[in-house]
Amino acid sequence: MSSPLAMPDVFHIYDTTLRDGNQQEGMHLSVTDKLRIARLLDELGVNFIEGGWPAMVAGDEDFFKSAATELELRNAKLVAYGRTREPGLTCENDPALAKLVEANTEVVCLVAKAHDVHVYDALRTTLEENLAMVDETVRYLVGLGKRVFVDLEHFFDGYKANPTYAMAVLRKAAEAGAEVVVLCDTNGGMLPHDMGDIVSAATQVGVDLGVHCQNDSGCAVANSMSALDAGVMHVQGTINGYGERSGNVDLTTVIANLQLKYKWQVISPGQLGTLTSISNSIAEIAHQPLNPRQPFVGHSAFAHKAGLHAKAVQINENLYQHVDPRAVGNSTHMVISEMASRASVQVKGEELGLDLSDRKVADQVAELVKQRESKGYSYDLADASFELLVLDYLDQLELPFQVVSWKVVSEDDGSEENSVSEASVKLIANGLREGVISVGNGPVNALGQALIQALSGEYPFVKSYSLTDYKVRILDMEAGTDAVVRVMIVTTDGETTWTTLGVGTDVIEASWEALADAYHYGLMKGYGSNK
Amino acid sequence: MSSPLAMPDVFHIYDTTLRDGNQQEGMHLSVTDKLRIARLLDELGVNFIEGGWPAMVAGDEDFFKSAATELELRNAKLVAYGRTREPGLTCENDPALAKLVEANTEVVCLVAKAHDVHVYDALRTTLEENLAMVDETVRYLVGLGKRVFVDLEHFFDGYKANPTYAMAVLRKAAEAGAEVVVLCDTNGGMLPHDMGDIVSAATQVGVDLGVHCQNDSGCAVANSMSALDAGVMHVQGTINGYGERSGNVDLTTVIANLQLKYKWQVISPGQLGTLTSISNSIAEIAHQPLNPRQPFVGHSAFAHKAGLHAKAVQINENLYQHVDPRAVGNSTHMVISEMASRASVQVKGEELGLDLSDRKVADQVAELVKQRESKGYSYDLADASFELLVLDYLDQLELPFQVVSWKVVSEDDGSEENSVSEASVKLIANGLREGVISVGNGPVNALGQALIQALSGEYPFVKSYSLTDYKVRILDMEAGTDAVVRVMIVTTDGETTWTTLGVGTDVIEASWEALADAYHYGLMKGYGSNK
Repeated sequence: MSSPLAMPDVFHIYDTTLRDGNQQEGMHLSVTDKLRIARLLDELGVNFIEGGWPAMVAGDEDFFKSAATELELRNAKLVAYGRTREPGLTCENDPALAKLVEANTEVVCLVAKAHDVHVYDALRTTLEENLAMVDETVRYLVGLGKRVFVDLEHFFDGYKANPTYAMAVLRKAAEAGAEVVVLCDTNGGMLPHDMGDIVSAATQVGVDLGVHCQNDSGCAVANSMSALDAGVMHVQGTINGYGERSGNVDLTTVIANLQLKYKWQVISPGQLGTLTSISNSIAEIAHQPLNPRQPFVGHSAFAHKAGLHAKAVQINENLYQHVDPRAVGNSTHMVISEMASRASVQVKGEELGLDLSDRKVADQVAELVKQRESKGYSYDLADASFELLVLDYLDQLELPFQVVSWKVVSEDDGSEENSVSEASVKLIANGLREGVISVGNGPVNALGQALIQALSGEYPFVKSYSLTDYKVRILDMEAGTDAVVRVMIVTTDGETTWTTLGVGTDVIEASWEALADAYHYGLMKGYGSNK
Repeated sequence: MSSPLAMPDVFHIYDTTLRDGNQQEGMHLSVTDKLRIARLLDELGVNFIEGGWPAMVAGDEDFFKSAATELELRNAKLVAYGRTREPGLTCENDPALAKLVEANTEVVCLVAKAHDVHVYDALRTTLEENLAMVDETVRYLVGLGKRVFVDLEHFFDGYKANPTYAMAVLRKAAEAGAEVVVLCDTNGGMLPHDMGDIVSAATQVGVDLGVHCQNDSGCAVANSMSALDAGVMHVQGTINGYGERSGNVDLTTVIANLQLKYKWQVISPGQLGTLTSISNSIAEIAHQPLNPRQPFVGHSAFAHKAGLHAKAVQINENLYQHVDPRAVGNSTHMVISEMASRASVQVKGEELGLDLSDRKVADQVAELVKQRESKGYSYDLADASFELLVLDYLDQLELPFQVVSWKVVSEDDGSEENSVSEASVKLIANGLREGVISVGNGPVNALGQALIQALSGEYPFVKSYSLTDYKVRILDMEAGTDAVVRVMIVTTDGETTWTTLGVGTDVIEASWEALADAYHYGLMKGYGSNK
């Protein structure tokens, strides 16, 4: 394979996060979620947003209704997904096609069978009837004024099993008026060397081609790019690679590769700069954990940990990164860990505005980090706790309050009421002793509420603080509830967020430590005090 | 690119989970962790296990000392990692090389610079001195009777910048006696079309070649396979793709692709059948979350959710999977979700031995699942809770005990002692009323201990139950501690494990629900009663 071609004159980034992505195990997007994600996709600059499959998925009809009034897209076209008419029906009498038309989008995408065995076993019809279904459905929708894309399901497997039939379906879709015919590796089993020859054969038909790759062989990105090299002009995928089984191709990686490696301007540089934040926001809306190792946009994608690398990075930051992280809205950061050398502690210190230029001090801080990490702390993701640790070590830590004691009771007395939690906190702030009791949904919430109440006399702006994430990790997974737990809390004042840690054998004790540190840190920095 | 070559006569799977994998942000392997992982790698059948970098990483010297007495490898050779001598030193006087030799392994792997800019900026020496460093260090170690592999750092970037110099380093390593010279894409920025030409050029030297890919472009698997297509006979990577930034190439995917797609027998079919369990065990030892979408070995890798697919899978299970999941020790499963059709509920029922063949009943169960999922439950991963739900719906649920009430107090009174949690539980088992108070490390532990004590009179085998995992998820991440939380608990009797759920605004209440269901389910099934 030689180096990449020039960018096609017309090029489509086609996002199916809302439809195919939502088929992922554990993924449950509501209509509101979908509207929010569609706005972000539009901002990012994708060309098409597949919104759903109104005839198949409960809620997708509602999505298209809501989208009609609530969704104003500036860049992208919304697409409704459906399949070719049922065997034996006419297009006019197929209720699923009626639902597709009712979605009222300018562009529709039809899935059609291109693999003979699937025609027999899944559709239970003949090869001829399947061709007629493709032909009639495309013509019917084109006749209604729609732009029609056709997804040829299992095209690559189908081509390997029966190339004549797979090509016949492709030709039929093209002749019937499909604007783009999309070659799908539905089972995701292809390898890059499979793509070139099959796509090249398909280009002989003369219709615009697309590609849709699943990641079951771990090659979805490379397969998509191989198909682009062989002449497709439309690439389907999902943000963060969401999707069934091993997922769809991750569009964030494809876009960054095309833009930064192929030098194709598929979106604007400004839009590319939002890639990391949009990837994170969509994960948050979809309630999916972030993958720190995700190429380009992951939290660790430009992190440096090993001593050797850290030292080299101090000299020339491009030595150990394949692209400039700022191009995709990400950033380099130095990881603090038990492997930390003096160099990585110093770089981290600079990042946080702490003076660790003294070699001896930096060595001692690295040693301290190692000790704490052996107890279960992990500062990789908790800069606020790291800063508190360093300030304490440097004797520069002035805590805004001192805790005297705390207690929390959770109870379900067997009555019809839900269980309740009641927390009491005693502390000293600015020399004044405060004691409050607070009731909350759950012990951590009750403790947090009590803390806010106790502090709000001296620090009224503390009321703007809230938790945005709360993670509990058992560190010795084999020992169960007896083991050490690490709690990580992300707090915000609405503008800035910061992360703190607590470790202990008791989840409440560890939560309390993370909670108290979160308030110490926020108050120390004066976060929220400008409101 | 054409179809794959035959398997080379000598082929190396070279694992660097313990060295390069351990550089991942958040990864902290102890000596014990490393010994356990090395045993699993040996079982899996990899040829080489890179154990660590004794001159660079604290603890790695200890690992090699412990390995000498505690690690008996049947398949693999242990490798110590080091770098070429320092500029200006002799090999005999370089303390880092002394540490490498002290690791006392038959095989060593040396990292050498192959990119001219790195020689200037990171090593701060001349191109000639770097060549001398490679030459002398390889000869020195060969002279000590070692088998020497050489990792050419940044070879691909280096080749693009200065092919003459990159090739000169490669030739120097070969002439000095390196057994394998490994071309590294250290920054992970290559795309598959970059690999073929550069690897082909390198093969002209006539030495055995290896490849080491990082995943920064999301193409590490495809890049590794492209290099194999172009003639390398040694592939480096890590289990689950652990590693710095976006990680190393995932050896589980590479092995499965080679074995099942290329039909190369790189390990035995029996060893391939352990791939999923070894991948999971190493994640557990490394305290890394599992990636459900991981190709071949992920929990979702062969999951089916969409209604269309679920129906087709009932007819022919090979229609929607690229390989037989049993080949890698994984299995097909049907996902229960709000997208669940009657078909997927029925397949799931069969999996669990529940009779849901009645269409109407299956429809109603699907409806029930949707209702519960809208409240925050998620049965995708919690088969035990799903079974309890269905049995309750079918009026076939006989709970082994009834809860009357519970209460838990956590307190830190400000004394020197740690905080304590005290739980009291009242329940009725077999008509007998039990009430106990128990103290534990944390409220969930205290509740669990109280539950075991209260049940152990009627069900003595309950003492074999323990928690292996406890996960808390905030469902509305923007609302912080006020939001709904979902708790997922994995329980074991030492043989079987089962997963239950609890949902509520209170983490303790949700934990209690999951805990009580775990004991209901285990007792109902009689788990542990044969002991």
